[in-house]
Amino acid sequence: MKKAVVIYSGGMDSFTVLHKALREGYAVHALSFDYGQRHKKELDFAKAVCEQLQISHKIVDITAINQLLQGSPLTSDIAIPEGEYSVENMKSTVVPNRNMILLSLATGYAISLHAGAVFYGAHHDDSAVYPDCRPEFVHAVNEVTKIADWNPVEIIAPYLNASKGDILKDGLAMGLDYSQTWTCYNGREQACGLCGACYSRLKAFEAQEQTDPLAYEVH
Amino acid sequence: MKKAVVIYSGGMDSFTVLHKALREGYAVHALSFDYGQRHKKELDFAKAVCEQLQISHKIVDITAINQLLQGSPLTSDIAIPEGEYSVENMKSTVVPNRNMILLSLATGYAISLHAGAVFYGAHHDDSAVYPDCRPEFVHAVNEVTKIADWNPVEIIAPYLNASKGDILKDGLAMGLDYSQTWTCYNGREQACGLCGACYSRLKAFEAQEQTDPLAYEVH
Repeated sequence: MKKAVVIYSGGMDSFTVLHKALREGYAVHALSFDYGQRHKKELDFAKAVCEQLQISHKIVDITAINQLLQGSPLTSDIAIPEGEYSVENMKSTVVPNRNMILLSLATGYAISLHAGAVFYGAHHDDSAVYPDCRPEFVHAVNEVTKIADWNPVEIIAPYLNASKGDILKDGLAMGLDYSQTWTCYNGREQACGLCGACYSRLKAFEAQEQTDPLAYEVH
Repeated sequence: MKKAVVIYSGGMDSFTVLHKALREGYAVHALSFDYGQRHKKELDFAKAVCEQLQISHKIVDITAINQLLQGSPLTSDIAIPEGEYSVENMKSTVVPNRNMILLSLATGYAISLHAGAVFYGAHHDDSAVYPDCRPEFVHAVNEVTKIADWNPVEIIAPYLNASKGDILKDGLAMGLDYSQTWTCYNGREQACGLCGACYSRLKAFEAQEQTDPLAYEVH
């Protein structure tokens, strides 16, 4: 059976990617990272989903590397920007080189498992804010992972050119339950409804004329 | 002043690269990794050199990621292979995707420091054993680090096509003192003189008709 590592944050995009990989017949090894994110709650969602699906799941604590990376509000006490998911507004949430770091770790894991693929939930809406979600970035990483070991590893980003709304549409068509996902950058009891991540999640539901099953503080 | 991150293990190759970057006028930020290597002693050598040079130095503990990576004798109790530095003999010392991981972390650090370059001591002799020391690997990584952030980072591997002997020659011409470096894969009081790393170090000194200033158990 073909094996794949799926980078799985616990959010709605990677949740959809995880199910997509399963439906494509991969033996999935889910991989989550604790990078000191304030919304660590997403990891509890990831864990619960993997337990329910009875698939392999690792959560790796990489907080030690934060001493190398300039502060982002996602990993510090700086305020999370609210409102529109625009470049200017969200720029401060960029964790330097985050995706290259996560993809390189996932590729090392794939090599160790003799898996030929790493699934990753980059999508088009993120690419204006996060340089390491751009299609050209993912293509360039693929050229590295192809030759980083004697056996190639392919980075598969099935939604690279899709919007978050498209991902949701695909997931709903698969019958997925998005109450099993966490998106809000604030890790409180209920999703805040105001941060950039909530904003884009709610916009995706709106675009699909669906109601988000999660509870929000402000909506 | 132009800034650079130098990946600095404490071994002779990166020691030479560190001095090269300094001579090229970079403000150097040395970066070492504790990845659970049995020859952790190299980190003490790195620390002492940076203190003497009075340059910034960080040692980052990334042992948490070993749970993702299949065992290499460098990070476990498996015996270190002795003798010739050949592909078959040394293959077991490959840490899956090690260099992509280290380069991605160094690039994140460079982005945070607003540094435009990461120096890295890959050289030709390693490229037969370690797939991630091959020139094509380094070129591919450069295509990623160019676009991983809005500001490009260049991976500079000055000895990519050189032998370990060539590096030593360059370093000796710079007047460097190689008693300040540690190479042996076993982390004992004296270098073992038998492991693949000692073997290639001694060969480099021999090629330059020089005597290694380090003490060896067997020579």
